[in-house]
Amino acid sequence: MNRPLDRTHDPNLRSWVTSANQPDTNFPIQNLPFGVFHRRRSAEPSRIGVAIGDSILDLAACGKVGLLEGLPEPLQAACVAPTLNPLMALGSWASSALRDRLSELLRWDERQSPPEANILVAIAEAELLLPAHIGDYTDFYASIFHATNVGKLFRPDNPLLPNYKHMPIAYHGRASSIVPSGRPVKRPQGQRKPPDDPAPSFAPSQLLDFEIEVGCFIGAGNELGEAIAIEEAERHLFGLCLLNDWSARDIQAWEYRPLGPFLAKSFATTISPWVVTLEALAPFRCPAFSRPETDPQPLPYLCSEENASWGGIELAVEVLLRSTQMRAAGIETIPLSRASFAQMYWTVAQMLTHHTSNGCNLRSGDLLASGTISGEAEGTQGSLLEMTRRGDRAIALPSGEQRTFLEDGDEVILRGYCEKEGYARIGFGDCRGTVV
Amino acid sequence: MNRPLDRTHDPNLRSWVTSANQPDTNFPIQNLPFGVFHRRRSAEPSRIGVAIGDSILDLAACGKVGLLEGLPEPLQAACVAPTLNPLMALGSWASSALRDRLSELLRWDERQSPPEANILVAIAEAELLLPAHIGDYTDFYASIFHATNVGKLFRPDNPLLPNYKHMPIAYHGRASSIVPSGRPVKRPQGQRKPPDDPAPSFAPSQLLDFEIEVGCFIGAGNELGEAIAIEEAERHLFGLCLLNDWSARDIQAWEYRPLGPFLAKSFATTISPWVVTLEALAPFRCPAFSRPETDPQPLPYLCSEENASWGGIELAVEVLLRSTQMRAAGIETIPLSRASFAQMYWTVAQMLTHHTSNGCNLRSGDLLASGTISGEAEGTQGSLLEMTRRGDRAIALPSGEQRTFLEDGDEVILRGYCEKEGYARIGFGDCRGTVV
Repeated sequence: MNRPLDRTHDPNLRSWVTSANQPDTNFPIQNLPFGVFHRRRSAEPSRIGVAIGDSILDLAACGKVGLLEGLPEPLQAACVAPTLNPLMALGSWASSALRDRLSELLRWDERQSPPEANILVAIAEAELLLPAHIGDYTDFYASIFHATNVGKLFRPDNPLLPNYKHMPIAYHGRASSIVPSGRPVKRPQGQRKPPDDPAPSFAPSQLLDFEIEVGCFIGAGNELGEAIAIEEAERHLFGLCLLNDWSARDIQAWEYRPLGPFLAKSFATTISPWVVTLEALAPFRCPAFSRPETDPQPLPYLCSEENASWGGIELAVEVLLRSTQMRAAGIETIPLSRASFAQMYWTVAQMLTHHTSNGCNLRSGDLLASGTISGEAEGTQGSLLEMTRRGDRAIALPSGEQRTFLEDGDEVILRGYCEKEGYARIGFGDCRGTVV
Repeated sequence: MNRPLDRTHDPNLRSWVTSANQPDTNFPIQNLPFGVFHRRRSAEPSRIGVAIGDSILDLAACGKVGLLEGLPEPLQAACVAPTLNPLMALGSWASSALRDRLSELLRWDERQSPPEANILVAIAEAELLLPAHIGDYTDFYASIFHATNVGKLFRPDNPLLPNYKHMPIAYHGRASSIVPSGRPVKRPQGQRKPPDDPAPSFAPSQLLDFEIEVGCFIGAGNELGEAIAIEEAERHLFGLCLLNDWSARDIQAWEYRPLGPFLAKSFATTISPWVVTLEALAPFRCPAFSRPETDPQPLPYLCSEENASWGGIELAVEVLLRSTQMRAAGIETIPLSRASFAQMYWTVAQMLTHHTSNGCNLRSGDLLASGTISGEAEGTQGSLLEMTRRGDRAIALPSGEQRTFLEDGDEVILRGYCEKEGYARIGFGDCRGTVV
């Protein structure tokens, strides 16, 4: 559905917002990700914007001066809402029509001058908020390399459970504690019982970790009882962001049987503020993960030709760390991991279809996360649990410190971008959080 | 906090709504549970009401004719909202002040005549909706008898996992598919792999079950990062309802490792429409479950004198079934189970405190469910899985049919009530759902 390229993807397009024309920007005119912001030190309500270079195009301001005229009335109304939920609810035609209009509006064209109205806000002047009211949040487990890495630590002979290759495994997460990038993350307290202790104790987590994931926002929802077929799945996806699924491994190890992770995760989940639409990602679609021939085929409800040919996304994701001592020494960051979202065993369409296969209703603004994105090789693992083999192999930081798990003051930065010869770079912007 | 009795609990109180004075009513003037309704065949928005006998006291109508005058302004505003969330957010002082006023307003008093305004709606004329917008839903596992019964089926030598007696185990549930009593429940489809099948298949669930639980609505919430101490926990609880945690056992068995239940539960959860406040339940508080002396003491953050002395609730819960054939034969229902909520291993205060112990924020209207309420004896088990030993012992219905799991057309009815010599009966009203 989202593969056909059009004028908005043309790599030669330039914007009159000149910062958007820098080759290393996250937000060229070909991207146009949606977010919610308000001006710092202002009491005005939140509004919708689109990132362009180092600025935000303020959609409410655009509407006010008539720049959205001619668009269908419900779409114009969605542009002045305080969250993206109304725009998401309209479905993919709406974000597509809006993308066309905004691409035109921001385009540099010798024959006409840019609008004179004050419709830009510097990103540096804005506080970026959660893009949507998130009704329900679901966390998948779609990287077979992550599942295998973690499984090996706990069940060396039998790392992958028998259901893994048949369905995208997931659990319900906590929506209330999802926070936007930049919000400090308080180290949780909780019960843990190290194997050598006779009884559990209640104390701050000693094994605090991150997980790099991609989050998917639901566009148009479905009614309770009505499944979404795999052929229709991507029409219900509004767009993607980065997500840090902070995890307290000591709390998790003690609490998770038999009902899964609970307090080990629910203290905080950080997401990046900009939602990159599937349409912006069209040039970077690729075949779904190539399963070894010995792996079982998924059941028919999880298969389509389209999904096999184009279900993947060539999106590179990175984790970087900066400790208090590094900050004091003027050292920027150390990269910890780099992996590709194209290596996930299950596609976003398969996750969405499986989720609704029992009739479960998704609502606009609901968030599905991919699970930790890990590759097969060293340096591609998306959590400290994997990188350090549950703390057995410390990581050396350039400040001379060692890390097995996160220390107070550590800042974790997630980045994601799509790059390909002949196309504009599509960036996701940072997803940051500092442990306090 | 909620134990002291006052004039509103006086068993001799009578209402001018005469149906509320019948000894078998669920809704005497001592109860006053809150709900949300709209008149059938009307286009008017939903409004808040209080059940009294066979009627609903319409709070918006009361406000309009001045019957709420003198109450604090935010409380009056909360009474005309379309859900209970604003009232819940005000905290326990508000529902308490409102209870006092409504008890007075509904009281039969020789010296004054009842209000003349049209402030009552017959329950039979109303459609009852979800009482609140539910942000997050969490399902606990607080009955040790249920956990043991289910554990025995899967791990005969080792039914209870080592963490069970140290903390209230829980998982995040799905909020979007919570429906009010009476809504039909569509049998879910899903992947299952019976042990003798070589591969999984996708088909309608063959092992559809119910679970009888109590749901707890959050009143005033807490900020992210701020735990709620056990001494404060009940101040954050607005009230209780009944909850049917429909479960597809074949889907559950295949999907639940390692992340817990997902699609086996997320197709539907039914709740009863009336929220009974903790204040109404004050006469029925009792000591927390009496743990065998060999059981470990909970860690200090889960203990208080108040919780030990008064943390339990003497609430009887029942499950009844009616099949299509029973309906055709004019047979009302067959009781399947009767248990006491006082037999839960963990109290509602312990569940709430544990939930926030990592800093997780609860929001007004969030729902915590207790987990299946089962006792030790036969006839007290809260799910078919337990009653039939995973289908090994069929139940005979009065129509001559047999049941191991639910068939299409089966109606499941949950009931709950508090009864005690010298006090008015406090009923919860039915929580119903029919499998289609």
